Amino acid sequence: MTMQKILYTNDISRAVTSLVDEMHPATVHIITDSNVEREVLPKLDLPYPVIVTEPGDVAKNLDSLSHIWSELINGGATRKSLVINIGGGVVTDMGGFAAATFKRGIRFINVPTTLLSAVDAAVGGKTGINFNGFKNEIGAFAPADAVVISTSTFATLPCVELLSGYAEMLKHGLLSSEEDYNELLAFDIVNADLDRLLPLLEKSVKVKERIVEEDPREQGIRRALNLGHTAGHAFESLALERNAAVPHGYAVAWGILVEMILSNFAEQFPSAELYRYANYLKEHGYGTPAITCDDYPRLLALMSHDKKNDTPDHINFTLLSRPGTPLIDRTATPDHITESLDIFRDLMGV
Amino acid sequence: MTMQKILYTNDISRAVTSLVDEMHPATVHIITDSNVEREVLPKLDLPYPVIVTEPGDVAKNLDSLSHIWSELINGGATRKSLVINIGGGVVTDMGGFAAATFKRGIRFINVPTTLLSAVDAAVGGKTGINFNGFKNEIGAFAPADAVVISTSTFATLPCVELLSGYAEMLKHGLLSSEEDYNELLAFDIVNADLDRLLPLLEKSVKVKERIVEEDPREQGIRRALNLGHTAGHAFESLALERNAAVPHGYAVAWGILVEMILSNFAEQFPSAELYRYANYLKEHGYGTPAITCDDYPRLLALMSHDKKNDTPDHINFTLLSRPGTPLIDRTATPDHITESLDIFRDLMGV
Repeated sequence: MTMQKILYTNDISRAVTSLVDEMHPATVHIITDSNVEREVLPKLDLPYPVIVTEPGDVAKNLDSLSHIWSELINGGATRKSLVINIGGGVVTDMGGFAAATFKRGIRFINVPTTLLSAVDAAVGGKTGINFNGFKNEIGAFAPADAVVISTSTFATLPCVELLSGYAEMLKHGLLSSEEDYNELLAFDIVNADLDRLLPLLEKSVKVKERIVEEDPREQGIRRALNLGHTAGHAFESLALERNAAVPHGYAVAWGILVEMILSNFAEQFPSAELYRYANYLKEHGYGTPAITCDDYPRLLALMSHDKKNDTPDHINFTLLSRPGTPLIDRTATPDHITESLDIFRDLMGV
Repeated sequence: MTMQKILYTNDISRAVTSLVDEMHPATVHIITDSNVEREVLPKLDLPYPVIVTEPGDVAKNLDSLSHIWSELINGGATRKSLVINIGGGVVTDMGGFAAATFKRGIRFINVPTTLLSAVDAAVGGKTGINFNGFKNEIGAFAPADAVVISTSTFATLPCVELLSGYAEMLKHGLLSSEEDYNELLAFDIVNADLDRLLPLLEKSVKVKERIVEEDPREQGIRRALNLGHTAGHAFESLALERNAAVPHGYAVAWGILVEMILSNFAEQFPSAELYRYANYLKEHGYGTPAITCDDYPRLLALMSHDKKNDTPDHINFTLLSRPGTPLIDRTATPDHITESLDIFRDLMGV
């Protein structure tokens, strides 16, 4: 898989325009959702036709994909055309898949407009849609030809969006080095200085790039990016089952703490780091999952149903021996997980 | 793009079984159409569940694709599952695309059951479906993990199917060498000895493999595989417009002759070869297109609308300086094309 070209900038329009000039495509087509069309596109003032989808994960489906393909045809797109996906993870995932399959693949640029999509979904070549109720069930590995990363669209983002994305940045810091991780814990994401956030974001994206480059098809080290996600998905799914959805990034932030505790049991991850991390979450408003010990069996079942796991007795996790040192393909027993959930609740005051 | 593993065999079941043993997939799913299910599968007697689509190019659409994806989910397919596409080009194209996009890509084997799909569609990594009336508009470059090629399913094929596939073999011979081409002209495809056909087919597939390997994304020499197709598609489309469809392979066989004549004008392709080739077509029942000189303007318009062409004044062709020596990215003027259609009609007695 070829490296993606990633531009870090405070001027999205200029970056996009210079990319288009370089690539001289036959036609250019923006793909976005109706929220981004209203809130962001007027500020960018790009002279290209726009294909608009409904916002939100529910719209990440075959109907929207089919709509995008049809609009590309109606807009005269050829094999030499260019798609520009401007939006959050739903837009970059679905628009990327639309481009990757239109006439067997045309070029596309991602312009993530949320912190979460900038740090996560816009890089790494995973594209796709939900299908028959399964998330990202249909898709392709197809890296964007270029990604334009800017914090300039974050000013109007609700705080919950920033916190969500920052959880993934904390994860990347934990996978990268103590120094990177310390720098992230010293940054106040709630009252974020967006100019100072850009270089932190750049560092964070480069962690993911490095890992994805080493293992594009997730056969080894890329699984480290699942840190926090096995427990996190369980929190997220439990909340969904109760019709009380929690933001993905919050669930990941909590999941990281659970997996730090497991790391403390199994890999001597330092206890002091548990407190330091839990304090960051509490001081910056990540909230807590609404769980009691009655929920443990369901949480365990959800963890063992996570797609990376094969047996219920040994659930697969990415663990850490210390910040900056991930260990992939580790397992934990149900007893250890139960105990870690107890400690999690203590630390978070649930 | 990695080389595909291609097995040439008279025992499909044994070849498939040994491939499955090697790959030890989580689950195995056969994709086929209802004709092949009835005519071929009972003879193969493979112990895997079958996903059946409607036969024919009209079924190569998003609904069928969606049906295949759903059936893979219902059948418990995981990332480690294996799809076996058994059928003609529609099945291998659509089944390949379904596999290439299910959970961002699972492994698949192609077992072409027609000569045309054996020689053409099953090799080279082009997968896809028709969309909004456009052929192969949606798809991906995704080579099969293995292809099992056998002539054993051809015994019950109607003659028109064999002739169609053989046109692509003649094309490969013309792209390869005088010797290969002569061997093909010496073989009687109408009363085909299937055991003798298998080594000829192997040679033919290897020509395509070699070209595709050199240029997987069709940026150069792979365009040589378009020999006969610019004029051929025009014959095919004209016939379709008149509700009198002609077999794809017949149209290609005719198109090759038109492009040989253009090659004679522009590249000194030997005149004697025009007669020799035209005689093979006439003696083996390829028929002729129902055209008069009144159809030339429409044929020219169709050629200039072919996706490889940019301007109507210089239409792009693959030409030949002699059998075995293709020349890509050549152009011809409308006058030369008109003249070549006159000579084509003379040679074929239209």
